Amino acid sequence: MNKPMIQIALDQTDLTSALKVATSVASYVDVIEVGTILAFAEGMQAVRQLRQNHPDHILVCDMKTTDGGAILAELAFSAGADWITVSAAAHIATVAACKKVADQFNGEIQIELYGHWTMEDAKSWRDIGIKQAIYHRSRDAELAGIGWTEQDLDKMKMLSDLGFELSITGGITPDDISLFAGIKTKTFIAGRALAGEKGAETAAVLRKKINQYW
Amino acid sequence: MNKPMIQIALDQTDLTSALKVATSVASYVDVIEVGTILAFAEGMQAVRQLRQNHPDHILVCDMKTTDGGAILAELAFSAGADWITVSAAAHIATVAACKKVADQFNGEIQIELYGHWTMEDAKSWRDIGIKQAIYHRSRDAELAGIGWTEQDLDKMKMLSDLGFELSITGGITPDDISLFAGIKTKTFIAGRALAGEKGAETAAVLRKKINQYW
Repeated sequence: MNKPMIQIALDQTDLTSALKVATSVASYVDVIEVGTILAFAEGMQAVRQLRQNHPDHILVCDMKTTDGGAILAELAFSAGADWITVSAAAHIATVAACKKVADQFNGEIQIELYGHWTMEDAKSWRDIGIKQAIYHRSRDAELAGIGWTEQDLDKMKMLSDLGFELSITGGITPDDISLFAGIKTKTFIAGRALAGEKGAETAAVLRKKINQYW
Repeated sequence: MNKPMIQIALDQTDLTSALKVATSVASYVDVIEVGTILAFAEGMQAVRQLRQNHPDHILVCDMKTTDGGAILAELAFSAGADWITVSAAAHIATVAACKKVADQFNGEIQIELYGHWTMEDAKSWRDIGIKQAIYHRSRDAELAGIGWTEQDLDKMKMLSDLGFELSITGGITPDDISLFAGIKTKTFIAGRALAGEKGAETAAVLRKKINQYW
């Protein structure tokens, strides 16, 4: 099993701040994400500028695409994204439209697991060639105090067994890492925890835990 | 029952083209929508500029918010939006976070009905004070040839009976209008059909049909 990577989510509301954070964390993260907030605040110039500044990082655009798949995918991939996210609530035709554009750019699609998605949905994503999904506590659910449950872990294992590589997010701390042992994990995603004064230190502790369990 | 309004969805990938379309249709539409595509392409400057150009129109920002509700809502409302959209797949805490910000701006939330949402979800949205929802064929489903079904109309009636005002979209033609008679309809949404050479004419035919059925 490949070792999970570390991903920073940039959710600043202005590009200048986001670029500063990206520069400060680039040496210790593998994947840089233009978060939905940053993408809506500043548009695709955020993707273009981060691509230019960080040519060797994997760059994700977190659009949570729900419709208009071909055009949104074209916008993000042509701006320099390697991966884009598509909502689990999107019609399968939308997922397929995004996949087709991704293939043209050698990009990848990540399904964002929100709402009442089912394992049937997961099989239909897999059947059209989708290889990644993102599992998380929602930011707002997290604020409401809802933690990682057995049910979460069971679903992750089922997705992993179906062949999906999972990116995991939602207030991840180094102590959480052991929970996910045995799951095909693509990245662990964090924002503020990696960006602050103690960001490098947090990343180092995450790597140590990753090396312990993968 | 109030008469449905007519809404243009601006899904251009650059602001200059979108502003031109908005100016050309402003005299015969009631609601101007910054579509998801335009919002991701150009960011919140699209909302700010359209607000400035069209101070008397209702302005919608179609974010299909799925997480990070408070920050996204603040971005769009502070840029001048009157309404924002929130995905049916969002956690109820996210919907509530958006509603709270909307109330501070005298704005409104529209639930975008994608994915496996249920009438239980609809009741929970209503219970926190949400009054609008958007019902549509997905753009990609439409391209795949999936039309308005009895099931669609039944669900719309149930939502209308729960008290929701619906905006209806997805390749609407004047001949479709009669299908929705008896449903509390807030707006009919179209893009290219209202924007082209025959846009004014299409809008006039839509109004005539609306006057016939509401």
